[in-house]
Amino acid sequence: MGKVAVIMGSDSDLGVVEKGLKVLKDFGVEYEARVISAHRTPKQAEDFARNAKENGFDVIIAAAGKAAHLGGVLAAMTTLPVIGIPIKTSLMGGMDSLLSIVQMPKGIPVATVAVDGAENAALLAIQMIALKDKDLEKKLEEYKVTMEKEVVEKDRKLQERI
Amino acid sequence: MGKVAVIMGSDSDLGVVEKGLKVLKDFGVEYEARVISAHRTPKQAEDFARNAKENGFDVIIAAAGKAAHLGGVLAAMTTLPVIGIPIKTSLMGGMDSLLSIVQMPKGIPVATVAVDGAENAALLAIQMIALKDKDLEKKLEEYKVTMEKEVVEKDRKLQERI
Amino acid sequence: MGKVAVIMGSDSDLGVVEKGLKVLKDFGVEYEARVISAHRTPKQAEDFARNAKENGFDVIIAAAGKAAHLGGVLAAMTTLPVIGIPIKTSLMGGMDSLLSIVQMPKGIPVATVAVDGAENAALLAIQMIALKDKDLEKKLEEYKVTMEKEVVEKDRKLQERI
Amino acid sequence: MGKVAVIMGSDSDLGVVEKGLKVLKDFGVEYEARVISAHRTPKQAEDFARNAKENGFDVIIAAAGKAAHLGGVLAAMTTLPVIGIPIKTSLMGGMDSLLSIVQMPKGIPVATVAVDGAENAALLAIQMIALKDKDLEKKLEEYKVTMEKEVVEKDRKLQERI
Amino acid sequence: MGKVAVIMGSDSDLGVVEKGLKVLKDFGVEYEARVISAHRTPKQAEDFARNAKENGFDVIIAAAGKAAHLGGVLAAMTTLPVIGIPIKTSLMGGMDSLLSIVQMPKGIPVATVAVDGAENAALLAIQMIALKDKDLEKKLEEYKVTMEKEVVEKDRKLQERI
Amino acid sequence: MGKVAVIMGSDSDLGVVEKGLKVLKDFGVEYEARVISAHRTPKQAEDFARNAKENGFDVIIAAAGKAAHLGGVLAAMTTLPVIGIPIKTSLMGGMDSLLSIVQMPKGIPVATVAVDGAENAALLAIQMIALKDKDLEKKLEEYKVTMEKEVVEKDRKLQERI
Amino acid sequence: MGKVAVIMGSDSDLGVVEKGLKVLKDFGVEYEARVISAHRTPKQAEDFARNAKENGFDVIIAAAGKAAHLGGVLAAMTTLPVIGIPIKTSLMGGMDSLLSIVQMPKGIPVATVAVDGAENAALLAIQMIALKDKDLEKKLEEYKVTMEKEVVEKDRKLQERI
Amino acid sequence: MGKVAVIMGSDSDLGVVEKGLKVLKDFGVEYEARVISAHRTPKQAEDFARNAKENGFDVIIAAAGKAAHLGGVLAAMTTLPVIGIPIKTSLMGGMDSLLSIVQMPKGIPVATVAVDGAENAALLAIQMIALKDKDLEKKLEEYKVTMEKEVVEKDRKLQERI
Repeated sequence: MGKVAVIMGSDSDLGVVEKGLKVLKDFGVEYEARVISAHRTPKQAEDFARNAKENGFDVIIAAAGKAAHLGGVLAAMTTLPVIGIPIKTSLMGGMDSLLSIVQMPKGIPVATVAVDGAENAALLAIQMIALKDKDLEKKLEEYKVTMEKEVVEKDRKLQERI
Repeated sequence: MGKVAVIMGSDSDLGVVEKGLKVLKDFGVEYEARVISAHRTPKQAEDFARNAKENGFDVIIAAAGKAAHLGGVLAAMTTLPVIGIPIKTSLMGGMDSLLSIVQMPKGIPVATVAVDGAENAALLAIQMIALKDKDLEKKLEEYKVTMEKEVVEKDRKLQERI
Repeated sequence: MGKVAVIMGSDSDLGVVEKGLKVLKDFGVEYEARVISAHRTPKQAEDFARNAKENGFDVIIAAAGKAAHLGGVLAAMTTLPVIGIPIKTSLMGGMDSLLSIVQMPKGIPVATVAVDGAENAALLAIQMIALKDKDLEKKLEEYKVTMEKEVVEKDRKLQERI
Repeated sequence: MGKVAVIMGSDSDLGVVEKGLKVLKDFGVEYEARVISAHRTPKQAEDFARNAKENGFDVIIAAAGKAAHLGGVLAAMTTLPVIGIPIKTSLMGGMDSLLSIVQMPKGIPVATVAVDGAENAALLAIQMIALKDKDLEKKLEEYKVTMEKEVVEKDRKLQERI
Repeated sequence: MGKVAVIMGSDSDLGVVEKGLKVLKDFGVEYEARVISAHRTPKQAEDFARNAKENGFDVIIAAAGKAAHLGGVLAAMTTLPVIGIPIKTSLMGGMDSLLSIVQMPKGIPVATVAVDGAENAALLAIQMIALKDKDLEKKLEEYKVTMEKEVVEKDRKLQERI
Repeated sequence: MGKVAVIMGSDSDLGVVEKGLKVLKDFGVEYEARVISAHRTPKQAEDFARNAKENGFDVIIAAAGKAAHLGGVLAAMTTLPVIGIPIKTSLMGGMDSLLSIVQMPKGIPVATVAVDGAENAALLAIQMIALKDKDLEKKLEEYKVTMEKEVVEKDRKLQERI
Repeated sequence: MGKVAVIMGSDSDLGVVEKGLKVLKDFGVEYEARVISAHRTPKQAEDFARNAKENGFDVIIAAAGKAAHLGGVLAAMTTLPVIGIPIKTSLMGGMDSLLSIVQMPKGIPVATVAVDGAENAALLAIQMIALKDKDLEKKLEEYKVTMEKEVVEKDRKLQERI
Repeated sequence: MGKVAVIMGSDSDLGVVEKGLKVLKDFGVEYEARVISAHRTPKQAEDFARNAKENGFDVIIAAAGKAAHLGGVLAAMTTLPVIGIPIKTSLMGGMDSLLSIVQMPKGIPVATVAVDGAENAALLAIQMIALKDKDLEKKLEEYKVTMEKEVVEKDRKLQERI
């Protein structure tokens, strides 16, 4: 009923990535989290991407920083949608990661979210799977309503306070 | 079996956008192309987004430049996946558009592609729909093989030439 | 005699925004502070903007960060002047917010101030209202004199110290 | 009835600025266009700013490029609202002008619009004056309706064409 | 025998500026340190610049941050050489200050040094005065020799340590 | 006595790359020029890199633009030195390519040269091979002398002309 | 009574540099224009800088682009004031040149002007020499008056035209 | 069997540089670490570079920040390959250093690695020397295997943990 691969280029990215894992869990979407480096374990990257569809995955999320090739490398070897999370770096706050992910050449898209945007990467994956899963679609609508209520509540509290 | 909305913020974006329309046509995916401005026709934007699912759309592609709010505004009013194309501008080559689209807050993702990356936006939409359409999935695999052959052929020609 | 709406996209922006609220209070200008998100509560944003004039507002100040669409979204639905405060972010220090606010397309201006420039947003609103309020105009002139005196005093203290 | 000063730092800025002058003319707002340089004619800049209110001006628009100090210099010597237009340059497409204008210190705001955004500067000035001029307010509402119609018409034409 | 004015736009810049004051003191060059704001005390800025030559100054150093107009404003009203120190800011690390100072239009130069480069601003002022002061010239040569020796000594220590 | 692989990600990069090929030819260094895309022909990229050493290559030069992963992908699968040429793009003049190449993670270096710096990539490869080839070393010294003479000659001509 | 060295890193910089030469000529200041490359003719750079004072130079102007080391290299070997002109490049419009020149370490200042700012470099040199040359000082004052008159005249013409 | 010079522009760079020294030590490659400043000790820089080959060095690594001329200055006076490490700075996170090093003109390459990328600079030097040293080549292959194993192990641990 939909399965998401969440690949991070380094285990140091886990702090960011697990916010996305939580979203997947909250929506009841199955996932597998992996540490696979485009540069240090290219063979594993290839094996994972080539077999991802066959292994039941619908979407691949790839988090990487600096010269962030992971998403592109995976996308080169699968036709599944790949979502890229640029990890914040000390050089330009992640601008290097962002440009390395989003500026993919024609033919091999990587759907890019904000720097450190792990929750949105998860939500995007869920939106994709929801195209074939009515229950998930309903949960997304409830999620939107909840978000709205939270902001309305914060607005109400601000009124009281000021 | 899958329908894509392609919204552009201005008809001046058509030159970029129609490269994506061609990809959709080549893959036999139904689409509707619209000029809707987040700022000049906000009502139309809202109406479109709120009714998109009901009107049979699976994915929304939004192309916009400068303070490019179109994708985010549409994403705020639907749970369908929204793909954003940053249009190149004369200020920093589209960096303004890119940052205005990709840096969405938690809860409302916009899947961002490269500046002027209309073909990749279309391919990404196709990959999403292919999650529930085996024929489309096969076409994506053929597309990848064709791309590979084209590069191999260009490589061969370079060998002859040099 | 003049009322200002101060909308923030998230209650986490309050730390910045309240410096502007203080300026409004100091000048005796009525204001209403709200948390309304362009993306999470688009309906509220629309309702607020469409009714702002009728509800007695003269100017709208909108503070938002990252893909900061709030100012533009409000400006799309009112003819009142809208002032945008880009909130500082960890990506390029708020450059993303700044470009998302200032680069508005022809027809829908958002008067942009410095990153985190809440006091100046308030002063700008006051200058606008002062166009029809002689008392406020006088207060602005006094404010300028006070600022001058403060700098002159700091200069004097520096002379003593060095 | 409202009068706008449109100051440009160099007569080479006229190509950009006159798009704003046209907007003012279309709205029937009186204006005076001047070439005054913050650096080459500082005395004229001071005289103009200090006497602007007395000379019947409501708003000052200042267009300048590169180390664009004109808006700030004028704002330092008046309590009228000052709107800054960053002129596009060959270094970073006007980013230098933009930062020189928008990053004003606390106490002296300059309402900044997009790079080369002369029309929006004019509209912003009109919005300010409309706070005390019901006719102008009505014209702004008509302008918004016209803009909407134009986009709707472009959308209709696109449907025919595709 | 040479006198330098060191103007800072805000007393908060003193932490940076006093490193330059120390250099002037070490070289025995007379200086006057002042807090004068281009925007908050424009009259004082004008008075200072217009009378600087007559008051015996040879060089003016101006330190300012963000939309850093101080150097340009002073340079507009004197023919003395003006040296600009861009103060580091939280937006792009002082890039805004740097561009606001260095990108001066033809006719009104401001000699710009590195962000927070107060020592080099002082040294530059000393180099200028040394054009007419043989003693100062000799001190500059000794300073260069001392710098060289310090690096050689650090190199020697590194050899011992590694 | 030394062989260089010059890989370009797209045949559109040839215009830049052939300036480097000319340098290799001038120095009499054997080379092979190839079109191999990290994203469109990942298998070929892998095969080439894994067998490069065995096929007699000493150095790999990789030219790519935008999200320029080619150099990193090749470096991941060989221990030969890899030199990356960032190709100029319309987004930030090649800054995207540059950051995608130079910001490689620890363990997998890519020696990066200037945007479009094909000649320097070739020279760098020659310098590497010259470590084991005395003749090449001598040619490099002659090249340096020739460069020096050319500049001296240009200087002489300028003297005549002015 | 004052002599200026104008060094350019490449004869391709002459188009920019000769605008500065013209200013020096107009002010009657003696100068010598040279092509000396920090990287291709380091020996000449060293010889020139070490002997500049002895050869009667008061100021050195150095124009260079990209990794623009010329100014810094010359400044390292003289105590004369060195003025750097960053030459515009296709990567970020000269931002690379600007940062390479202005960000000099403590102890070795290079007085930096705007990208391609050759006239201002010349004026700055003239301002420095004017510290010891009353005639030159008077010419600078006349120059300022002329500039002012030109702008006033342009302003007058604009009034006629509009 | 291969010797590397590791030059840093300031002893404050040692914290970064010594990560590279450790890599050289781990690979058993001889090295010499020096503090030599392009600007403060230009004579030492010249002497070192001119004699480097004769003194048995194969590769020079140069670490410098801000207007980072060290690598270029050394490369100008030797035909040995020079590797540049841009040191992180507070202005744009080292972007100034990076551009000052990588944007070298035609004829004088500096092989640039990531900001603060000392380990990769060392590995690159080792790769170069390995072209003539079979043992070193073998160690590089083992290093790659070890890296791979470490990532695989981290991946395994993540599986256990999640």
